[in-house]
Amino acid sequence: MKNIRSGEILCVGTELLVGQIVNTNASWLARRLSLLGISSYYQTVVGDNPARMLEAMKVASSRSDLVVVTGGLGPTADDLTMSVAAKMAERKMQIHLPSREAISEIFRKMGRTEVTENNWKQAMMPEGAFVLPNNNGTAPGAVIEYSFEGREVTMILLPGPPSEMQPMFVDQAEPWIRQHVPTSFKHLFVRMIGIGESKAETMLLDLIDGQNNPTIAPYASEGEVIFRISQLFDKNDGDITKQPDLTAELLAEVRNRLGEFIYEVGDRKMPEVVKDMLHAQRKTISFAESCTAGLLSDAIAQYPGASEVFKGAIIAYDNDIKTNILNVSSDILTEYGAVSEQCAIAMATGCRDVMKTDLAISVTGIAGPDGGSEEKPLGTVWLAAASADGVVTRKLHLAGNRGRIRRVSALQALDLARRQLL
Amino acid sequence: MKNIRSGEILCVGTELLVGQIVNTNASWLARRLSLLGISSYYQTVVGDNPARMLEAMKVASSRSDLVVVTGGLGPTADDLTMSVAAKMAERKMQIHLPSREAISEIFRKMGRTEVTENNWKQAMMPEGAFVLPNNNGTAPGAVIEYSFEGREVTMILLPGPPSEMQPMFVDQAEPWIRQHVPTSFKHLFVRMIGIGESKAETMLLDLIDGQNNPTIAPYASEGEVIFRISQLFDKNDGDITKQPDLTAELLAEVRNRLGEFIYEVGDRKMPEVVKDMLHAQRKTISFAESCTAGLLSDAIAQYPGASEVFKGAIIAYDNDIKTNILNVSSDILTEYGAVSEQCAIAMATGCRDVMKTDLAISVTGIAGPDGGSEEKPLGTVWLAAASADGVVTRKLHLAGNRGRIRRVSALQALDLARRQLL
Repeated sequence: MKNIRSGEILCVGTELLVGQIVNTNASWLARRLSLLGISSYYQTVVGDNPARMLEAMKVASSRSDLVVVTGGLGPTADDLTMSVAAKMAERKMQIHLPSREAISEIFRKMGRTEVTENNWKQAMMPEGAFVLPNNNGTAPGAVIEYSFEGREVTMILLPGPPSEMQPMFVDQAEPWIRQHVPTSFKHLFVRMIGIGESKAETMLLDLIDGQNNPTIAPYASEGEVIFRISQLFDKNDGDITKQPDLTAELLAEVRNRLGEFIYEVGDRKMPEVVKDMLHAQRKTISFAESCTAGLLSDAIAQYPGASEVFKGAIIAYDNDIKTNILNVSSDILTEYGAVSEQCAIAMATGCRDVMKTDLAISVTGIAGPDGGSEEKPLGTVWLAAASADGVVTRKLHLAGNRGRIRRVSALQALDLARRQLL
Repeated sequence: MKNIRSGEILCVGTELLVGQIVNTNASWLARRLSLLGISSYYQTVVGDNPARMLEAMKVASSRSDLVVVTGGLGPTADDLTMSVAAKMAERKMQIHLPSREAISEIFRKMGRTEVTENNWKQAMMPEGAFVLPNNNGTAPGAVIEYSFEGREVTMILLPGPPSEMQPMFVDQAEPWIRQHVPTSFKHLFVRMIGIGESKAETMLLDLIDGQNNPTIAPYASEGEVIFRISQLFDKNDGDITKQPDLTAELLAEVRNRLGEFIYEVGDRKMPEVVKDMLHAQRKTISFAESCTAGLLSDAIAQYPGASEVFKGAIIAYDNDIKTNILNVSSDILTEYGAVSEQCAIAMATGCRDVMKTDLAISVTGIAGPDGGSEEKPLGTVWLAAASADGVVTRKLHLAGNRGRIRRVSALQALDLARRQLL
């Protein structure tokens, strides 16, 4: 039986090459392949051009066991992927009657009598292909097995629209793939805040260099640090369920060195962690936002069910709002300024009073590009958290542009909330 | 002088290969290249693996005049892109003193004394590279010119984080690229709201099919409709400045047919258009947000100088906030519910009173996934605008998930504000 160890993704579509749409298919499929335990070393995008498409398929076939192709299965003249795949696999195209039936059935349901030649084209399949019916559109997909340069290659062709591609992959392609994958992965995402990436990596360097399986490696992130611990399980080493899980040991060592900075081991991002802690403790939160101006509230409100823990926020962009609604005394503003520990404290306590929440978080800072001074440079941000236990503050010195300063301020404000809930 | 006609994008990052992040850099850069008049036929993603990275760079160099590389410029051990690029161009790596000083300056500003070896690594540059300073992070970019298989190739290396990559490309790489592109484009972006894309497309179909140069085509967008009018100027046809501008004529015809829906011809998005109108009229705005919970405020606050027109917002997620701070009478909430025209009106007028702004906009709706009913289905959203002239309302029936409903609600709320300022 064949062993699929490596796979790569080939996305077809001129709209991708000109940046009209973001290639979410690639990241979605990459995640699925990774979870299946298939190593993926390449992603490629080409336009609806048969020569370049065929070249890309050959390159992919020369280096990967599995080639997943999306896009170009539509009815229009420039949807050529299926016929190019047939050329790649040296197969004839032939009519696939069940697909032809399915297409006319769809048109019948839509009350459309005349089916154009274009649409029948979607029922043409490479000889010997394993056809994947499309339950959410007219274009069927296919699994084609062929050998190229002496290698056994499997190509899976899927439609471009995510609403058709995703169910076809999950329901039909994945069960087929699983039978041919000899490995599986376990991943742990270790999320930290309060330490720089280079500092964190220096403290784990021996683990990063020394480890083979499981491995640990840093992940791209903004304002926080993420490491991924991955263990590979191989069927060739016997029953996977009986192989020891070595991730816990490595995680323990990471906790040992950087535990104070770890806020999550898993997939939840900071806002979700805070939201869940509030849920678990049946507590409510509110925000007094100045420079973040809505980012903090949105970070929580993006999650369904947020309304159970998030009561609301005052975005006090103008000092009048700070005084009139948050009851920050004008003395504080004149004496210390809006970006000061005193103002952050007054905003948080004032917010907690008017919002009547267990916890209130305030953010006031200089996001720029203007407003910085010698004494309070660009990126100076004060945070405060008010609760029944009193008020705690945190001062930030952030680098980057206006956008980054605002986003990292919101992230740090959520971390301050989290620490009050520990 | 060299002629850059073709370009391709190479994104480096294992986090892309495992689908942990969506590759927005590729689509963003593809858009910019297309706007520059550079034809792009390939996009590639590889991991932080020097051999595969070098192979991908060679393949790209063998077929494209320009290779734009993002990612892998960070301080960690697996950030290898710059050194692999040096190998590709057959250059030595050497210390770049200005970058080294910039890095220590950043750390000084952040009040961090010890700079790790990792960070100094970011100051190592290929010999003869044109260095692109990073104003939003520690990793500088670079432009490297070399010849490969007898072709003149330019490689531009950029950091992976969009907040660092985008300004570096726009401010530093693009001016350099423009000098070497033999063609130039004039683009007009015609932004419309209040009409569906297919409807708009139907009304312009003859223009879309008939035109050759300039062309008009729909542009991907959410909750609005954007058409791009593009005219190609080629230096080979003589002095570009003397070639006639044909875009105005086409634009006039589009205005003729769809003028009532056009809110901008240019690059400004809806929030910026509203911000600028407020500036010009010396008026202030405030928001009462429920389901959008910060999106509306952030849309305005993201722009420098927003504080001159945006005073603040009340995010009244919980009904208590609607009554206590916005003074929405509890009768309205019990009789009509929070998602009602009456509540939207009360929120807007209440917000205008407490915020003391010329204009106040309210949003209240059902973003889901729960909360929908027979009478008020998911996606039901009420907007209100309160000004000295009184109150106007708008009802929306939005399709899509929680995220889309919230984003389009914010966009429509800004459009309602815009109409009050006309």
